[in-house]
Amino acid sequence: MKTAEEYVRSLKQLKLNVYFFGQKVENPADFPITKPSQNSVALTYALAHDPAYSDLMTATSHLTGDRINRFTHIPQSSEDLVKKVKMLRLLGQKTGACFQRCVGMDAMIALSSVTYETDQKSGSKYYARFNDFLKYVQREDLVCNGAMTDVKGDRGLRPSKQQDRDMYVRVVEKRNDGVVVRGAKAHQTGATNAHEIIVLPTLAMRDDEKDYAIAFSTPSDSPGVVHIIGRQPNDTRRLEGGEVDVGNAKYSVAGHEAIVVFDDVFVPWDRVYLCGESEFSGPLVERFASYHRQNYGGCKTGVGDVLIGAAATIAEYNGVQEASHVKEKLTEMVHLNETMYACGLACSHEGYKLPSGTYCVNPLLANSTKHNVTRFPFEMARLALDIAGGLVGTLPSERDLKSPEVGKYVEKYLKGLATVPTENRMRMIRLIENMAFGAGMVESLHGAGSPQAQRIMILRQAQLEAKKKLSKDLAGIKTDPS
Amino acid sequence: MKTAEEYVRSLKQLKLNVYFFGQKVENPADFPITKPSQNSVALTYALAHDPAYSDLMTATSHLTGDRINRFTHIPQSSEDLVKKVKMLRLLGQKTGACFQRCVGMDAMIALSSVTYETDQKSGSKYYARFNDFLKYVQREDLVCNGAMTDVKGDRGLRPSKQQDRDMYVRVVEKRNDGVVVRGAKAHQTGATNAHEIIVLPTLAMRDDEKDYAIAFSTPSDSPGVVHIIGRQPNDTRRLEGGEVDVGNAKYSVAGHEAIVVFDDVFVPWDRVYLCGESEFSGPLVERFASYHRQNYGGCKTGVGDVLIGAAATIAEYNGVQEASHVKEKLTEMVHLNETMYACGLACSHEGYKLPSGTYCVNPLLANSTKHNVTRFPFEMARLALDIAGGLVGTLPSERDLKSPEVGKYVEKYLKGLATVPTENRMRMIRLIENMAFGAGMVESLHGAGSPQAQRIMILRQAQLEAKKKLSKDLAGIKTDPS
Amino acid sequence: MKTAEEYVRSLKQLKLNVYFFGQKVENPADFPITKPSQNSVALTYALAHDPAYSDLMTATSHLTGDRINRFTHIPQSSEDLVKKVKMLRLLGQKTGACFQRCVGMDAMIALSSVTYETDQKSGSKYYARFNDFLKYVQREDLVCNGAMTDVKGDRGLRPSKQQDRDMYVRVVEKRNDGVVVRGAKAHQTGATNAHEIIVLPTLAMRDDEKDYAIAFSTPSDSPGVVHIIGRQPNDTRRLEGGEVDVGNAKYSVAGHEAIVVFDDVFVPWDRVYLCGESEFSGPLVERFASYHRQNYGGCKTGVGDVLIGAAATIAEYNGVQEASHVKEKLTEMVHLNETMYACGLACSHEGYKLPSGTYCVNPLLANSTKHNVTRFPFEMARLALDIAGGLVGTLPSERDLKSPEVGKYVEKYLKGLATVPTENRMRMIRLIENMAFGAGMVESLHGAGSPQAQRIMILRQAQLEAKKKLSKDLAGIKTDPS
Amino acid sequence: MKTAEEYVRSLKQLKLNVYFFGQKVENPADFPITKPSQNSVALTYALAHDPAYSDLMTATSHLTGDRINRFTHIPQSSEDLVKKVKMLRLLGQKTGACFQRCVGMDAMIALSSVTYETDQKSGSKYYARFNDFLKYVQREDLVCNGAMTDVKGDRGLRPSKQQDRDMYVRVVEKRNDGVVVRGAKAHQTGATNAHEIIVLPTLAMRDDEKDYAIAFSTPSDSPGVVHIIGRQPNDTRRLEGGEVDVGNAKYSVAGHEAIVVFDDVFVPWDRVYLCGESEFSGPLVERFASYHRQNYGGCKTGVGDVLIGAAATIAEYNGVQEASHVKEKLTEMVHLNETMYACGLACSHEGYKLPSGTYCVNPLLANSTKHNVTRFPFEMARLALDIAGGLVGTLPSERDLKSPEVGKYVEKYLKGLATVPTENRMRMIRLIENMAFGAGMVESLHGAGSPQAQRIMILRQAQLEAKKKLSKDLAGIKTDPS
Repeated sequence: MKTAEEYVRSLKQLKLNVYFFGQKVENPADFPITKPSQNSVALTYALAHDPAYSDLMTATSHLTGDRINRFTHIPQSSEDLVKKVKMLRLLGQKTGACFQRCVGMDAMIALSSVTYETDQKSGSKYYARFNDFLKYVQREDLVCNGAMTDVKGDRGLRPSKQQDRDMYVRVVEKRNDGVVVRGAKAHQTGATNAHEIIVLPTLAMRDDEKDYAIAFSTPSDSPGVVHIIGRQPNDTRRLEGGEVDVGNAKYSVAGHEAIVVFDDVFVPWDRVYLCGESEFSGPLVERFASYHRQNYGGCKTGVGDVLIGAAATIAEYNGVQEASHVKEKLTEMVHLNETMYACGLACSHEGYKLPSGTYCVNPLLANSTKHNVTRFPFEMARLALDIAGGLVGTLPSERDLKSPEVGKYVEKYLKGLATVPTENRMRMIRLIENMAFGAGMVESLHGAGSPQAQRIMILRQAQLEAKKKLSKDLAGIKTDPS
Repeated sequence: MKTAEEYVRSLKQLKLNVYFFGQKVENPADFPITKPSQNSVALTYALAHDPAYSDLMTATSHLTGDRINRFTHIPQSSEDLVKKVKMLRLLGQKTGACFQRCVGMDAMIALSSVTYETDQKSGSKYYARFNDFLKYVQREDLVCNGAMTDVKGDRGLRPSKQQDRDMYVRVVEKRNDGVVVRGAKAHQTGATNAHEIIVLPTLAMRDDEKDYAIAFSTPSDSPGVVHIIGRQPNDTRRLEGGEVDVGNAKYSVAGHEAIVVFDDVFVPWDRVYLCGESEFSGPLVERFASYHRQNYGGCKTGVGDVLIGAAATIAEYNGVQEASHVKEKLTEMVHLNETMYACGLACSHEGYKLPSGTYCVNPLLANSTKHNVTRFPFEMARLALDIAGGLVGTLPSERDLKSPEVGKYVEKYLKGLATVPTENRMRMIRLIENMAFGAGMVESLHGAGSPQAQRIMILRQAQLEAKKKLSKDLAGIKTDPS
Repeated sequence: MKTAEEYVRSLKQLKLNVYFFGQKVENPADFPITKPSQNSVALTYALAHDPAYSDLMTATSHLTGDRINRFTHIPQSSEDLVKKVKMLRLLGQKTGACFQRCVGMDAMIALSSVTYETDQKSGSKYYARFNDFLKYVQREDLVCNGAMTDVKGDRGLRPSKQQDRDMYVRVVEKRNDGVVVRGAKAHQTGATNAHEIIVLPTLAMRDDEKDYAIAFSTPSDSPGVVHIIGRQPNDTRRLEGGEVDVGNAKYSVAGHEAIVVFDDVFVPWDRVYLCGESEFSGPLVERFASYHRQNYGGCKTGVGDVLIGAAATIAEYNGVQEASHVKEKLTEMVHLNETMYACGLACSHEGYKLPSGTYCVNPLLANSTKHNVTRFPFEMARLALDIAGGLVGTLPSERDLKSPEVGKYVEKYLKGLATVPTENRMRMIRLIENMAFGAGMVESLHGAGSPQAQRIMILRQAQLEAKKKLSKDLAGIKTDPS
Repeated sequence: MKTAEEYVRSLKQLKLNVYFFGQKVENPADFPITKPSQNSVALTYALAHDPAYSDLMTATSHLTGDRINRFTHIPQSSEDLVKKVKMLRLLGQKTGACFQRCVGMDAMIALSSVTYETDQKSGSKYYARFNDFLKYVQREDLVCNGAMTDVKGDRGLRPSKQQDRDMYVRVVEKRNDGVVVRGAKAHQTGATNAHEIIVLPTLAMRDDEKDYAIAFSTPSDSPGVVHIIGRQPNDTRRLEGGEVDVGNAKYSVAGHEAIVVFDDVFVPWDRVYLCGESEFSGPLVERFASYHRQNYGGCKTGVGDVLIGAAATIAEYNGVQEASHVKEKLTEMVHLNETMYACGLACSHEGYKLPSGTYCVNPLLANSTKHNVTRFPFEMARLALDIAGGLVGTLPSERDLKSPEVGKYVEKYLKGLATVPTENRMRMIRLIENMAFGAGMVESLHGAGSPQAQRIMILRQAQLEAKKKLSKDLAGIKTDPS
């Protein structure tokens, strides 16, 4: 397994084509806008070497028997699924941020079973190919960017009905040695911190959409791949030179996101894991989604722990930690956070074995997990802002604190508890500001699918007919309407 | 293990002292007010003999190695804890009601570890005594009434400061052969369906409250024990002779509840499990509470399945099952229900072993479980009422349907879908009415402790200091206020 | 204006055809099931003679200049609309119940403008006819049953497509002297306390549904009219002879509801206010709905005041009135209640004059008023149940309290504060039980239209295009998509 | 009345002492960080000259009879109070932002009655003095910064118990010609757009805190006054030169906020309106708070209209405007928004006349108004983010769109509906981002007092004893506990 330093060094060797703010990023591995997000990924390497965390952070490869980073592991038991959630909470606690490495992990986990099932049904050879790739990823301890969400254009039209047919990634040419793909994937978390990109379809494709039923992997610096890093609230504070105003200077409070453009990218066949078998695009999407929704019961509760801690700290700094309404609000935050965690754990403990041997989460519970995450973090943020007070929206800058002219005023008048340095209070307020108004909130809502995506899955798995039967039995209804 | 028939027969042999509506109940085992609740308990026996459910409904005694009903089993693993929750959901689905047998189960589970720990510290002999009792319960396959909640009088005063010192059950005399106890326990679920009563203290007693630190068991027909059965919404509909208006004629929609008075009841020493060791009353209360809060993620989600099924059925009967807003409401009900279930599962899977070998649920997650149950079933009921329509509050009686004069009008005008008999529609509306406005709602709120009881436990276990540390690390705060 | 006594006497003169529980009610004016609801209506008469309330309870007829009961008044100003809401809150406070007289009032108010507009467009003579009827109602100070909701059958089908074409009230014969109508109206609040029935269509009828576009009035004891009184939770407690268990013995906690069957009822032309002009059925429905939704910001906040008072009282009786979480819950109840009231007031103050001179509420705000009432009373009930404690579901009966055998136990062990009689505590718990689990909750949800009905109206009046324009202006978007 | 241009010119004549980001702002009236907020204030001038809005935007001075800007008017009727709310909604719609001028308005309105009452009781001459100032403000059409919130230090200690006694603004010297004040006011909305500062105490002072019972006005460029402008999310995007990424380039999405330091500022007696009469500090605070809480039912619903419009527009741009779940979400946003508005209207319509002739809002309803604003805008923001999709957190910058290298990709792949320019879609997403994550959210929570401040007032005015009486009457309780 790589160390954090080796990981960072490996990034420097990539020849990524990256843009931000209209300009090419010359040295992506040292770019201050994305550096904090890189620090988060690096922690997934560092903790794997820390004996205190190795049980959660590492696993034994079912392919090679080697000790590997859990982010490259395919779950072989419910216990593996549970450890995945616990690992994510741990990292959420340590970074207060998104550490980005789980999307690629979930793409691999989904492929590990769906390629197997595709082969069983279609006589294809995807499973072996994928396992070769997986061994490579495990051996080199790579970060993969899981690329699913197409840009989609007009949401009212199917992929093949769009005016511009490239609104979903598709095969534009099939060659003897591979395929050429075109399109773009949006919301690619941590894209420039990844070595490889794993592309999956974004929805269940139909028979007449075979060109869109494509899954593959490609190095993130392949020719034709362009990364355009998106903006986030307060992103440029990272360029200001200070650290207070960033709130969480080391890790920022979110990963970075990019649109990844595939401008006629060539992919050799041994990196193609689905190509035209449209009936397997649906299972691939749903399975990936379930694994990814599971995660939110881990990472976001770790982040929630930080927010709860920040709210409790600022209450202390303000001198109100014993006020009953403050304690009620902290209790509510804890309750909401633990409810999300409980859901993440439950869908994992209730995992089941797929034909390939991979373990799958309980999909109904996984969808409920994520659905709670589209709600509770918003209420938690509101409660944290409530406890923190109005300064979250009015606090002067770090430079004001350090200004020869007005620093004395800031120092004097922004003091809370007399024993606490003003700077500490400012740091805590800034942490809360950046968490409550950060890109992580959008991620809670839309990551792993928007709320409605979960609702559709929840209803589909609700077994309403069985439930109707229960109610009819108890109501004494024997004859059903035909 | 007893059959359901043997269970009912055994009840008839008890000489219970029972009152309802101001009158002595001559034949409690055949009393129509409590019969449906007895049917629910009987199902815990019947299903244990059904091969389809034996994995959930039965267990192997850790004391004797015999196959026993799981309701008399002490969990020896996390898997046991999980099966407890799943068994409860199953029974909730089958009865749509409270089946009452879990309170006594949880009292036994709590005693199984606390008596052990008390002995370790105090040199007492409670553990062996309790195991003797437990073997008896397992062998005879008994129902135990778990009696915890004292009547409490003025909640602003401690037990020993009440004007009437009997507001908490206490020892009024210690004799060579046992103790004499006085007081009353409120909210005793399923009291007249039980063979034995297990009494626990209701709160952590202090050093000067040793007389209140008492735990024991006694047959439910012991001299001096008086049961006064409480009223429930629509209770007397069970006496009307029909079945439609009761909604759930076989099981009703709740167990029954009684105040159990101990009018100087003698308890021999071999049935006393705590007597004066006040420091162990707290652990006993908290442990019992955690196990009991765990349950609500099982039983109430089973009941929730019935309510969801009823809402889906009435939507079908009304011809609106495809309306998008109806589907959204059903989805929301499912989501809330599964969230409660996930919590119940998670606190069980995350169980841990106590010194006695008994497994304990994760208390933080168990409290969050129950806390959600104080909220979600109310929103689910509101949604079910919404879907069901105004007839829930205005539907004529079963007798009107069958009336020679107006039956034709009821039949004609209360028809929904032309293919569905009016009576079926009425049955389903009545089921929803009785569930939404039943005593089970109060149970969701106050069973296993009122909302504030959970909030206190949640905050106490929130590890706020550790969370503050996480936030300070990320905010870059090194120096803490002293 | 009639006195309360005169009103009750007038009811006795009606020859109503009433059924309850499968039997004909011989003397509807003295029937214990409906007597409490009659008491509520009687209070609308009594308070009109009380100088303290005459400003709210009475008005000056715009037709005759006479002093009349406000329940027969057509609002001639925004002030009249506001007084309507305040009168309803007053009565809600005094009865804790539904006083039933507003449905007929709103039917009259709606007819007062729509008949005018129909005449203007169609050359009909409905307005004068209606005013004759109105003068009669005002002079005799009558109660009118406003009958709108058809039984509807299969909600997926239009009236004329139902298998049974009588699922919506319709004209089955037109004669020289009048029309013959058939069908049934459901959820008729206070039906047997009314002198007259005013029938309106239940939805906007289409051109091919002219037979269903019918509005008329008829005495409630007209030949062919049959009342079947529906059941309510705990209805038969009123027959038990005591008063504690009813909770609110004088007024009960809801009005009564009936299905009113029109079994070929003849209506003379001078009592017909719409007959075939289908394009005016929509306005009639919407206008009635808006007035009726306005009301809920009055009556239900009055009822809410009682519930808040009951929760505060039981907290005091239990000795926890100073607990911070109890105060928070009471505060929340007050806040929710005042929000509903504010909405009711706002839609009234913002009323506007219709062509006939009648004032109309602001329909968007009126719909938001009612929509909040489909939510907040449920949360208020949950909070009241929370504060009240588990006894709401387990309290013994009044007869137990008075029993020679067990009365002493009930008296002793159900005492809260030592200074408060146990009976008082029981009364307060019963009031809360009956309010939280009463038919009034269904009314909050479905009265004046189910939640979705308001949502449709809210969206329709949201002026989304204007709001889109605001956002485009601010976003700097000049060119719109065509 | 000044024109917008005259207003801006008048600002340029001020010699304000302003700091931002650690540096002195040389030309505050042309500072790009605060320019958008200045544009918002300027609109309060411009619209007053627009005949379409003059009814709302202007009023007649009760002192001089002149036509004045309503922002300088003292309400003389309930209608005035209502117009205040409607004016604020209008401006919220036009700016999508905070226009800052209401704080000073409310300070003046509060002083107009409390100075009168102080004089009546204390024989002071504050009322005349204040009216002189008011005439000056009306004549010159000035913007006043209402300065209330002290920095407070340790919230657990009273003003005089703070380690640094300057944590609340206080009189440090009384001279023949006036007073010298020291301290700082936090969260001063629009401070550098104001001509005058009106200072009020922040809480009810006690007898031993007379030095803190001080109210006065002073020009905003008085010697010793220092403005330190606080940071807001995304503030520096205003310096980037583009306009798309700012979301609302003209007005930004919030006003600016500053800490205003009073470093021994001299105030002549004729500008002092309270000095030591501590018993009137409470009424001054509560009255100001009520007026200011009223406002939020206006301004924030105007802003809400913009957000609803933006959500509806982006739904259209994405091609999902007809999806039922999208329509449900828009409906919910409208409902919540109108509920806030209804509360604002109701507390105004229900205004009452104070001894001075000033009209006061209904304080209970005003507090409920604001309390809803601490909740609903957060849910509205969540819904808008839900509808808008994940791009809110991942959208590339305006510069990317315009980049010669990657502009083509952004243009192509971020297109929604084929007919809508990509830039329009980006503009709308940016508007939503900046609204949902803007300082305006903090303002919704903490402006005019934090949630708990309203809860205290709501409970205080709840008339619980009267409500208890209602419930006891209905429960049939005659004898009260003594």
